[in-house]
Amino acid sequence: MKKLFFPLLIATFVLSAAAHYMHWGAEIEFILSAAAIVFVAGFLGKATESVAHYAGQRVGGLLNATFGNAAELIIAIFLIKEGLFDVVKASLTGAIIGNLLLVLGASALAGGLKFKEQKFNVHLAGQNASLMLLGIIALFVPAVFVKTENFPESETLTLSVVVAAFLILAYAGWLIYSMVTHKDLLEDHVDTQADHGEEAAWSKGRSILYLTLATVMVAFVSEWLVHTLHVFTARFGMSELFVGAFVVAIIGNAAEHSAAIMLALKNKMGAAVEIAVGSSLQIALFVAPVLVFVSLLFEQHMNLIFSTIELAAIGVSVLIATSISRDGSTTWYEGKLLLIVYAILGVAFYFV
Amino acid sequence: MKKLFFPLLIATFVLSAAAHYMHWGAEIEFILSAAAIVFVAGFLGKATESVAHYAGQRVGGLLNATFGNAAELIIAIFLIKEGLFDVVKASLTGAIIGNLLLVLGASALAGGLKFKEQKFNVHLAGQNASLMLLGIIALFVPAVFVKTENFPESETLTLSVVVAAFLILAYAGWLIYSMVTHKDLLEDHVDTQADHGEEAAWSKGRSILYLTLATVMVAFVSEWLVHTLHVFTARFGMSELFVGAFVVAIIGNAAEHSAAIMLALKNKMGAAVEIAVGSSLQIALFVAPVLVFVSLLFEQHMNLIFSTIELAAIGVSVLIATSISRDGSTTWYEGKLLLIVYAILGVAFYFV
Amino acid sequence: MKKLFFPLLIATFVLSAAAHYMHWGAEIEFILSAAAIVFVAGFLGKATESVAHYAGQRVGGLLNATFGNAAELIIAIFLIKEGLFDVVKASLTGAIIGNLLLVLGASALAGGLKFKEQKFNVHLAGQNASLMLLGIIALFVPAVFVKTENFPESETLTLSVVVAAFLILAYAGWLIYSMVTHKDLLEDHVDTQADHGEEAAWSKGRSILYLTLATVMVAFVSEWLVHTLHVFTARFGMSELFVGAFVVAIIGNAAEHSAAIMLALKNKMGAAVEIAVGSSLQIALFVAPVLVFVSLLFEQHMNLIFSTIELAAIGVSVLIATSISRDGSTTWYEGKLLLIVYAILGVAFYFV
Repeated sequence: MKKLFFPLLIATFVLSAAAHYMHWGAEIEFILSAAAIVFVAGFLGKATESVAHYAGQRVGGLLNATFGNAAELIIAIFLIKEGLFDVVKASLTGAIIGNLLLVLGASALAGGLKFKEQKFNVHLAGQNASLMLLGIIALFVPAVFVKTENFPESETLTLSVVVAAFLILAYAGWLIYSMVTHKDLLEDHVDTQADHGEEAAWSKGRSILYLTLATVMVAFVSEWLVHTLHVFTARFGMSELFVGAFVVAIIGNAAEHSAAIMLALKNKMGAAVEIAVGSSLQIALFVAPVLVFVSLLFEQHMNLIFSTIELAAIGVSVLIATSISRDGSTTWYEGKLLLIVYAILGVAFYFV
Repeated sequence: MKKLFFPLLIATFVLSAAAHYMHWGAEIEFILSAAAIVFVAGFLGKATESVAHYAGQRVGGLLNATFGNAAELIIAIFLIKEGLFDVVKASLTGAIIGNLLLVLGASALAGGLKFKEQKFNVHLAGQNASLMLLGIIALFVPAVFVKTENFPESETLTLSVVVAAFLILAYAGWLIYSMVTHKDLLEDHVDTQADHGEEAAWSKGRSILYLTLATVMVAFVSEWLVHTLHVFTARFGMSELFVGAFVVAIIGNAAEHSAAIMLALKNKMGAAVEIAVGSSLQIALFVAPVLVFVSLLFEQHMNLIFSTIELAAIGVSVLIATSISRDGSTTWYEGKLLLIVYAILGVAFYFV
Repeated sequence: MKKLFFPLLIATFVLSAAAHYMHWGAEIEFILSAAAIVFVAGFLGKATESVAHYAGQRVGGLLNATFGNAAELIIAIFLIKEGLFDVVKASLTGAIIGNLLLVLGASALAGGLKFKEQKFNVHLAGQNASLMLLGIIALFVPAVFVKTENFPESETLTLSVVVAAFLILAYAGWLIYSMVTHKDLLEDHVDTQADHGEEAAWSKGRSILYLTLATVMVAFVSEWLVHTLHVFTARFGMSELFVGAFVVAIIGNAAEHSAAIMLALKNKMGAAVEIAVGSSLQIALFVAPVLVFVSLLFEQHMNLIFSTIELAAIGVSVLIATSISRDGSTTWYEGKLLLIVYAILGVAFYFV
């Protein structure tokens, strides 16, 4: 498998490029680019891990989350340009709940079947919970005010911009806090120890080169993939909402997904949690607000008001994920619970 | 009192049977069957405890919850047959909040007046909290989606059936997890120790016989009792909702109630919590979804959509009960808080 | 500064009295009475701390909260007399979220910039969380029932009175629990030690005299201030809701505010939390229900039904404050988070 990785990466990438530019038809394009994104995501995951080896565990987690979300950000900017705000919000919702339920759930289940109980830094878990709560509050408060008090669109946008600015402020503060002032408090002593002897996949220079390359590839494949969804979903009768929130999110999270499960299987649950929860946090506190500002550059402006069912989905995901991770340990059953909540949300969204 | 128990059990049972079959009138039937159910519940509690002596503490707790809920399940099937879905949902709501607030609150208050602080397994408390959260999510998500997106009845039912299947899956996983794979993690070391010297009330064979007998008696008396409510409540002007959610639930939970308080007074708060919270969990994750499947056998099918006030009542009960029990200890004041929330809900339901 | 305190206190008090009774105009009255209330609040804070020196830390915290809220209670009674129930509810909302977010946030941020991590009694934090939850439930349950089931006004009032009685019962229980039966469990050992050598500002007799005097002065200045708001806000186009919930609350909480930050800077975070959270609790569990009873003495009666956005604001404040304080420690970043949530709510209320 390891030997075949690079040939398959290149083959699926080239084939999906050909399918896209030569118009081989939406079905074949979808299958090829979906296959390609799995390998590209895997490549991105490996490159990130290798860079993390040199930069340290926490910076590695942040890099993984950031490069994992780069694709989401780029796709979303394309969609915003076309004014498809509902699809953007659906895919942000899908990315948040996908990370909190599917990625975290699958990691906890996979790791939990191998190890009885997997522990991680309880301080970090508590901080993550409070930050996720801020994310919900920042989405929930404007929605309640706008819907209850019937704000006009201009006020809704102003409120969204202000809240977005506060969120970016909160995220910047979090980076300073978790990387500088309180780095030691949030560190995962178990993982750090286990890491000692491990060798990097590639040299430092090659790691950075590969990371850049992988990010660019993800961006391309993501775009090809999104392009096919519109035509493709019409055939299966799935709603745009479902495709945006589940199909795109599952494929788009492939990077986080594979990295987190791999780490959980190595009993580095702390790093897996950081990827899953860290990625959700980044979307709620950084990607979403940045998109509000980006939309100001275009003709149509995007506000931060999510629909009731999106808010409900994000709300319950945060509640169950924080309830399960707050004690700084996970087991297989807790992973199963998260996956069941994901399945329930998936079915509910499917019927909309 | 102990000497009089069996005579009174038989007397009240026989009298309420006579009242029911000879049509002595709703008022007299209600009083007699309400008296009978207290004794029958006590009998069931004793038999369960005696069986638990042979089967072990955790299996005992499960048995108590199961046999305690057997009555609810049987009553609910009769009601579903007649298409009285609102009454079924009201009684399920009442059973969940009755266990989480009244049974847990009365146990914590009674135990807390005797002992300064009563501790129990903090892992179990955390797991219980996450499971209860799953229960709310499974009731809340379909309700929000169905109400916001105006699902047609057929889709609502399909969604209900799928969610019900996931809940039963979660409950089955919980039994495996808590009884097999992670039994030791969730055990209550304090209680196990205190248990050592205790003698069983009856021999093993007699315990099982009595348990079966008590369950059958509970089923009969419950049915007689429910039969009287319809006529009886008309006289006091109470709504069906209030009777279903409070009167039926208080009487129907008599078994859990008496057992849990008795255990709390013996400083076995862990076992009391297990009965109260375990019983709620069983109703939300097992009884309610089973009833959805049972209803498929009859002409009219029951969905899982509870009313807004029922969801609010269940939601606040879970929030306060998990907030209080999550730290693995209770005091008299925490018991009082739970009882106050129960009283507030009772008054609010009374005015509907 | 210390030398100038009393002259400035007297000067601002006398000047704002003159402005009020000689009708110098709303703007000048507002500025003078706002300046006066800062000094009067500081005086009240010092007098409370001095009395607390003799009465003990916990009683001191309660005294500070009580005298800090005395002004709110008195202002509210004036407003109820005039039937301005919306303003009363807005100012109660503002006082609760102001204490939980602004006072607690500023204390945690200020203290956290000086000390890496500030710890306090984790039992007390858990109890506070449960009590705050009771406060939300007591406001949330009647609102949901009344709005969903369209209760008539008479039933709404009866429900409010019953719930108010339960809240006062809960608060009375809390005083007995935290001051008598479980005093030791909730004590802050770190603070008690640090307190030993500290000298009181004034003698016992003078402290009590000053406390009484300061309370009377607060009452007067508050009334003058409230009087100006009506005219004043018209000029800046702020809504009554915003003024009630933010301007009045920030000025009205000056006492708690200055005391809590001072304590946090002395690394007595436990006492700061007690003032901030204790004051919110007192408003939700004591001041609000007492006002319902007080309103029964007047022609128009006030119910306990808050608006949706007020409930949302109180709900998210309690959620984030309990999430942050539940582990018994705070850092600068957690303070920043609380302030960001306060800012988001402030902006949202401003746009209503």
